[in-house]
Amino acid sequence: MNNGLKIVTIGGGSSYTPELMQGFIKRYETLPVREIWLVDIPEGEEKLNIVGALAQRMWDASPYDVKVHLTLNRREALKDADFVTTQFRVGLLNARIKDERIPLSYGQIGQETNGAGGIFKALRTIPVIMDIVRDMKELCPDAWLINFTNPSGMITESVIRRAGFEKCIGLCNGPITVMKEEPEMLGGKQEDYSWRFAGLNHFHYHRVWDRQGNEVTSEILRLMSEDDRTNMANVHDVAYLSDQLDAMNCIPFSYHRYYYLYEEMLQHQIEDYGKGTTRAENVKKVEDELFELYKDPALHEMPELLMKRGGAYYSDAACETIHNIYRNTGSLMVVNTKNRGAVSCLPYDSIVEISSLINAKGASPLVWGDFEPSERGWLQIMKAMEECVIEAAVTGDYGMLVKAFQINPLIRHGHGAKEMMDEMLVANEKYLPQFAEKIKELKEQGTVIHDEKVRQLCEQGL
Amino acid sequence: MNNGLKIVTIGGGSSYTPELMQGFIKRYETLPVREIWLVDIPEGEEKLNIVGALAQRMWDASPYDVKVHLTLNRREALKDADFVTTQFRVGLLNARIKDERIPLSYGQIGQETNGAGGIFKALRTIPVIMDIVRDMKELCPDAWLINFTNPSGMITESVIRRAGFEKCIGLCNGPITVMKEEPEMLGGKQEDYSWRFAGLNHFHYHRVWDRQGNEVTSEILRLMSEDDRTNMANVHDVAYLSDQLDAMNCIPFSYHRYYYLYEEMLQHQIEDYGKGTTRAENVKKVEDELFELYKDPALHEMPELLMKRGGAYYSDAACETIHNIYRNTGSLMVVNTKNRGAVSCLPYDSIVEISSLINAKGASPLVWGDFEPSERGWLQIMKAMEECVIEAAVTGDYGMLVKAFQINPLIRHGHGAKEMMDEMLVANEKYLPQFAEKIKELKEQGTVIHDEKVRQLCEQGL
Amino acid sequence: MNNGLKIVTIGGGSSYTPELMQGFIKRYETLPVREIWLVDIPEGEEKLNIVGALAQRMWDASPYDVKVHLTLNRREALKDADFVTTQFRVGLLNARIKDERIPLSYGQIGQETNGAGGIFKALRTIPVIMDIVRDMKELCPDAWLINFTNPSGMITESVIRRAGFEKCIGLCNGPITVMKEEPEMLGGKQEDYSWRFAGLNHFHYHRVWDRQGNEVTSEILRLMSEDDRTNMANVHDVAYLSDQLDAMNCIPFSYHRYYYLYEEMLQHQIEDYGKGTTRAENVKKVEDELFELYKDPALHEMPELLMKRGGAYYSDAACETIHNIYRNTGSLMVVNTKNRGAVSCLPYDSIVEISSLINAKGASPLVWGDFEPSERGWLQIMKAMEECVIEAAVTGDYGMLVKAFQINPLIRHGHGAKEMMDEMLVANEKYLPQFAEKIKELKEQGTVIHDEKVRQLCEQGL
Amino acid sequence: MNNGLKIVTIGGGSSYTPELMQGFIKRYETLPVREIWLVDIPEGEEKLNIVGALAQRMWDASPYDVKVHLTLNRREALKDADFVTTQFRVGLLNARIKDERIPLSYGQIGQETNGAGGIFKALRTIPVIMDIVRDMKELCPDAWLINFTNPSGMITESVIRRAGFEKCIGLCNGPITVMKEEPEMLGGKQEDYSWRFAGLNHFHYHRVWDRQGNEVTSEILRLMSEDDRTNMANVHDVAYLSDQLDAMNCIPFSYHRYYYLYEEMLQHQIEDYGKGTTRAENVKKVEDELFELYKDPALHEMPELLMKRGGAYYSDAACETIHNIYRNTGSLMVVNTKNRGAVSCLPYDSIVEISSLINAKGASPLVWGDFEPSERGWLQIMKAMEECVIEAAVTGDYGMLVKAFQINPLIRHGHGAKEMMDEMLVANEKYLPQFAEKIKELKEQGTVIHDEKVRQLCEQGL
Repeated sequence: MNNGLKIVTIGGGSSYTPELMQGFIKRYETLPVREIWLVDIPEGEEKLNIVGALAQRMWDASPYDVKVHLTLNRREALKDADFVTTQFRVGLLNARIKDERIPLSYGQIGQETNGAGGIFKALRTIPVIMDIVRDMKELCPDAWLINFTNPSGMITESVIRRAGFEKCIGLCNGPITVMKEEPEMLGGKQEDYSWRFAGLNHFHYHRVWDRQGNEVTSEILRLMSEDDRTNMANVHDVAYLSDQLDAMNCIPFSYHRYYYLYEEMLQHQIEDYGKGTTRAENVKKVEDELFELYKDPALHEMPELLMKRGGAYYSDAACETIHNIYRNTGSLMVVNTKNRGAVSCLPYDSIVEISSLINAKGASPLVWGDFEPSERGWLQIMKAMEECVIEAAVTGDYGMLVKAFQINPLIRHGHGAKEMMDEMLVANEKYLPQFAEKIKELKEQGTVIHDEKVRQLCEQGL
Repeated sequence: MNNGLKIVTIGGGSSYTPELMQGFIKRYETLPVREIWLVDIPEGEEKLNIVGALAQRMWDASPYDVKVHLTLNRREALKDADFVTTQFRVGLLNARIKDERIPLSYGQIGQETNGAGGIFKALRTIPVIMDIVRDMKELCPDAWLINFTNPSGMITESVIRRAGFEKCIGLCNGPITVMKEEPEMLGGKQEDYSWRFAGLNHFHYHRVWDRQGNEVTSEILRLMSEDDRTNMANVHDVAYLSDQLDAMNCIPFSYHRYYYLYEEMLQHQIEDYGKGTTRAENVKKVEDELFELYKDPALHEMPELLMKRGGAYYSDAACETIHNIYRNTGSLMVVNTKNRGAVSCLPYDSIVEISSLINAKGASPLVWGDFEPSERGWLQIMKAMEECVIEAAVTGDYGMLVKAFQINPLIRHGHGAKEMMDEMLVANEKYLPQFAEKIKELKEQGTVIHDEKVRQLCEQGL
Repeated sequence: MNNGLKIVTIGGGSSYTPELMQGFIKRYETLPVREIWLVDIPEGEEKLNIVGALAQRMWDASPYDVKVHLTLNRREALKDADFVTTQFRVGLLNARIKDERIPLSYGQIGQETNGAGGIFKALRTIPVIMDIVRDMKELCPDAWLINFTNPSGMITESVIRRAGFEKCIGLCNGPITVMKEEPEMLGGKQEDYSWRFAGLNHFHYHRVWDRQGNEVTSEILRLMSEDDRTNMANVHDVAYLSDQLDAMNCIPFSYHRYYYLYEEMLQHQIEDYGKGTTRAENVKKVEDELFELYKDPALHEMPELLMKRGGAYYSDAACETIHNIYRNTGSLMVVNTKNRGAVSCLPYDSIVEISSLINAKGASPLVWGDFEPSERGWLQIMKAMEECVIEAAVTGDYGMLVKAFQINPLIRHGHGAKEMMDEMLVANEKYLPQFAEKIKELKEQGTVIHDEKVRQLCEQGL
Repeated sequence: MNNGLKIVTIGGGSSYTPELMQGFIKRYETLPVREIWLVDIPEGEEKLNIVGALAQRMWDASPYDVKVHLTLNRREALKDADFVTTQFRVGLLNARIKDERIPLSYGQIGQETNGAGGIFKALRTIPVIMDIVRDMKELCPDAWLINFTNPSGMITESVIRRAGFEKCIGLCNGPITVMKEEPEMLGGKQEDYSWRFAGLNHFHYHRVWDRQGNEVTSEILRLMSEDDRTNMANVHDVAYLSDQLDAMNCIPFSYHRYYYLYEEMLQHQIEDYGKGTTRAENVKKVEDELFELYKDPALHEMPELLMKRGGAYYSDAACETIHNIYRNTGSLMVVNTKNRGAVSCLPYDSIVEISSLINAKGASPLVWGDFEPSERGWLQIMKAMEECVIEAAVTGDYGMLVKAFQINPLIRHGHGAKEMMDEMLVANEKYLPQFAEKIKELKEQGTVIHDEKVRQLCEQGL
């Protein structure tokens, strides 16, 4: 690392890349980057070229001499990398459209990270990350893998427990958003408070204290009843039950709405679906706009619009993590890492999302301890679901996938849910080689796509 | 105990009592009963007299000289008892009608043991069992409490963990039914197989082996796909997903249909509700018929009809448990008792339903060990739910009750579920003194009963 | 198994074999043995022939037609076996002489099962049992391995955890002796009491109840203060501290004397050593006498003397275990089997010695639960020690062996203990191929045998 | 706390107090102390006056206006305190003389923190700390208790688990010493390394990493074989077995010598005892010298000699902890705090000594995870011993004390050890009111003090 770091970004053609560049530029004095490799697949070449050109312009506009390499050759890029970040999306936003629309056509919630949609996102992504790790073990075994591809928890668990690659940290932008918004709700500044998060990716809880060590958790819960400013851009802003918030001893996350307010969330999504405007489709539009902006040769900084896209702070968190590792800072961050007893109700080897001290040896979680039953049971069923999904993704075992669906609390179970699942398999045929045989069988048995838009995507080979 | 046992049955006016008498009569040679006390409350006096007269006739027709005492004075009955059995139903079947009909009026499943209905059954029953145990500690501290009042697991947990009364065993007729039916499915006899059950009341799994030690679990699962004869009388016989059964390594219980086949079960119940014939109402009819039969002074044995009532074998299990304790047999039974590590994924102090050796010192569970994630997560969320319910029942804390509802996997969560809950509170006003203040508040805020039949019951002061 | 069972006994030339034969003869009506194969190594051929001839004479004197095969070819014997029992002693009693005399020459206790001597017994035996299991996997993968080679717990753990051969049960004669003697101390009969044992091989505790479910543990502890009849023949009968017994809530085992009465036990052994009569040498004399008796062609039953040899009931326990498996009885026995949560303070996968139900599918431990700290800590350090020993035995890692010695609570630690250990390595050279290189190095560095008798044994190539 | 902090030091007459004053003076700018109360008992009044005068001189020589109050009235001092530190020694150094000399008169090691001596130190101290906490709950319920009275782990466990006072942090100077010395051994500076400690007070292990995240644990272990500079002043500097160090994956602490090098440590102590110069007596001499220095009215700073006394850095650690709490810094320190899953092999509620982040809400341990068996077993038996000691100290139960002695790995068990224990009880009569009755009984039964010096102390009523 002596003459600067080699950073590799898989999925480099992503719209997130400018935030990543900005993050590196502003940290350059303490985080000396030498070269950045943006890697993508042939289908993403056009975007890679657009965003890659902008990335180079951003560096050129900075005082630093850093070369941005664009490549479709992942192995070339990984060779001797110091840090690898992953932000790819298998099947692009079209896949998310399928993840959302097919469940909705069955009157069910898709939910792109932990619901039926999230399961399929995991099925598509895990085999690819396993491949990447195989390459890393060979080409850059000492590099750190900083993942912010979703579902970030399951991806990190696959890398660490399944592929046995320990130098991996998974990120999420959720906690960062929370820690920006809550001080404002309280009328204070971020440095006035300390946070402890624990749980799973997109399914964590947290507590907050002020500088005198007084817990302000209940105060925030009370304020959330009135106006929850911590809600993520991705999630419909339905009000929690104030009686529930009053009774809680820790603060839920935006995505808990899908569980605690299932009916309302479902109804909103069905309405959107009726209007043809699922979240994925909205995001796709923003993405198209973004790439139009990116093309502008006069642009040499990250456009503001990116922060409204739903993944704000993700890329900055990646830079911050790399910085904390490289500089051995020991700063606190909320990351996905191995539990090792920090959350007593979850298995020792599980990946959890938790407040951790980050330094040169990686992430050291702070002990959280016991959850109360009202949160414990949820976390445990979610983790069990994750384990089933990962097993299905790695083995291609159809029975295991049925089990994963049957234990997912966002799915109303029964024969209909299985039909929905089969349809999702067929619609994702291109991205699920591990299920190839089963998908063939399903098609022969007559499984068809009911949603018009999804059928069109499939017919276009997307 | 030297000159015979004093047996006390709380809820003695129950239609189950004749099976209990039959159980004691057939075991008399090795289980010398001296006197039986049937206890009930004033509202149950008429039934107590009817069933008590039959009970005495049954003994009189036997070769044994046993006196059946009828009383409304519980403390008199408990004095120096050797064994106490509990089979009472707070609020009678009318309460179950409310437990089922109010949820269905919201398009939700009631489910009388683990769903919204079961939560309210627990709320009504737990304060009463706590009172009984208080009396037992004073009047018969060395007696055993054999509970078969549902929800049996939560009641047993309240007695052991909350009231600190260790000599309590909870029963369920489910496993007995399973062990009678599965051998027939396999074309063998009960003595040809051995079973291991573990989990929670109405939420357990089991495995089966033949005499040579070969596991026949998969064979049963396969047969269940075709024709599941183990289904309980209480539960709609919807076919499990055969792909799920094929993938499982342990056998689910009837009640798992509510979870694994949520949509179908809901639909069936909504249809029944439309026809005005919920399960509770059917049971009530059978009960009325039974009591008509019981009145017949010529009847001096248990009528066959009782076995169709839904609680078959419960009472016999109670006699068998008492026999195994008294004779120190060390026989295996499936009972509700303290986990103490037998099921690794559940808390040490939790009550679990599990294969246990029964002898003079009580129940010793056989170690089950780990569950696979696909069952583990379910069990964990169910246990967490149970803990919230018990806490709410004991404390009358409304916030805790909201949490219990919010974690129950049979409830579609959201604002509607809370309204349903509030309505159930109001409809159960008479039986929930611990929530008196909150119920008053809810009524003042305008919470009303929407279901016509339930409203009538309430208006009649039932 | 249809036309009778094939039983194979590894170490068939052992003096224990007649008890084993007697055990099979008396159970023949329900345990139909077809053929018995006694296997030994060339060094044991003479004894094998003597004891084998007696074994055949015993069967010939019975009403049953069973052939006893003698062989040095283990693989021939194992082919299609139904049950394999192991009772071999690597290095014979000479090895035990070393195990006891070398430590005593350093003023330390040898203790043949859990002390320095036991460590070396494990080092010699584990590689051999791993070989046997390798053969079994190939030649009789469905057979059960019933081990009563000591240290029985560590051997069973090696077979199950290291070799991954699940169908193994380890035995010890200790609990059987206890359950024969305690009723006599109490003035009752064995059927009047029930026992629960838990812990580790030669390091377990137990509790006792009478038929009415009253615990009689304290009563036995009090009687033990006066006269402990449960003490094993192997162990000096030093009186426990009565203050300690009074304060305990469970009953220690004979071998706990080595820990609780360390100083007295050491002094006794040093005195014996001074007189040249360690336990191993005494046993050797009894063995010689036994084999003289066995040679008598008129003898066709087990001689009484065998029961005084120190391993009484071991072989009968093996027959009983086989019987319980074959007849699927579900009887309770105390065996070494996988913990799986039964003893909360020990690892899930550990082998524990515990009251278990034995049937066709093997051993199912009864849950013991928590130990109090005063026993918990001991069990935990002993299990940790066992794990270090097994690791050292399997890998031949010298550093791990140092760690095993450093954590063994019967060894007074320091530089002297390491010298003792090195001397034991050199004295066991012939039987420790996994440490060949290190032993060579030690010899080159001048490690010599100080004890005269041990030196002679080594010089004789024993 | 607005106009500065009120600090109370129980045992204010201790020779440590000047270091404490120095610590507060150097941190004054960020830790605004208003007043300091030094509390002691009548027997310590003279020393209190000497050291108190020096303390005031130290502040007077500083730029800060802080008043040092001297009092024998603990309750007056505690009223409205912000932080309470405890550094008292029940029975003064005379008690330590007994703790060391009586065991040595039996040929056993005393060891003032975890051996027989440490057990008696706990027996004397725990009732006093329970009293202090009772006062704090009444007079300053929101204050923090910073304990550095030994045995620090057991004291902290008593305060938190027994007295239920959560705002308590226990300190030890060991880790601080290690973190000062190891960088020198490695030829680097403290800021170049990061440490993780876990275990128990005076029985912890640690690992070390450099700034690049490379573990340097093995390197330190190798250097320790040659020259262990981390050894504490209190502990004879015997060389560890280099084979053991080479095989370890974490670094032992000075006090592990008592366990790993039992024989050598015992021999050294017996030699010292023969010469009449046990550690306690040496410390007493240094103390006398210190107080001579302290009397000098010209002295207004901490004399260098104090740092050689054996407890160097203790007081500074107390100031640092208070600073980290008050300023909400989130700095890492090694403290005694609740485990809550951080060390997987120890109970959830146990107090452990562990690397923790310290801020306004107290100590948050970093997860350590699993120990290897070679350390795990040791930690577990030591924690079990601690639990027995605390139980005996709180209840005065003699049987429990016997058990505590019987499980302590530094004691060679048997009848002699019990005699030694009885003698220690008698010698500590004045300080063990909870054992008054038993001590009376022992004296009547003829228990006498064999060691001449101890007898004299007792005769002097010390």
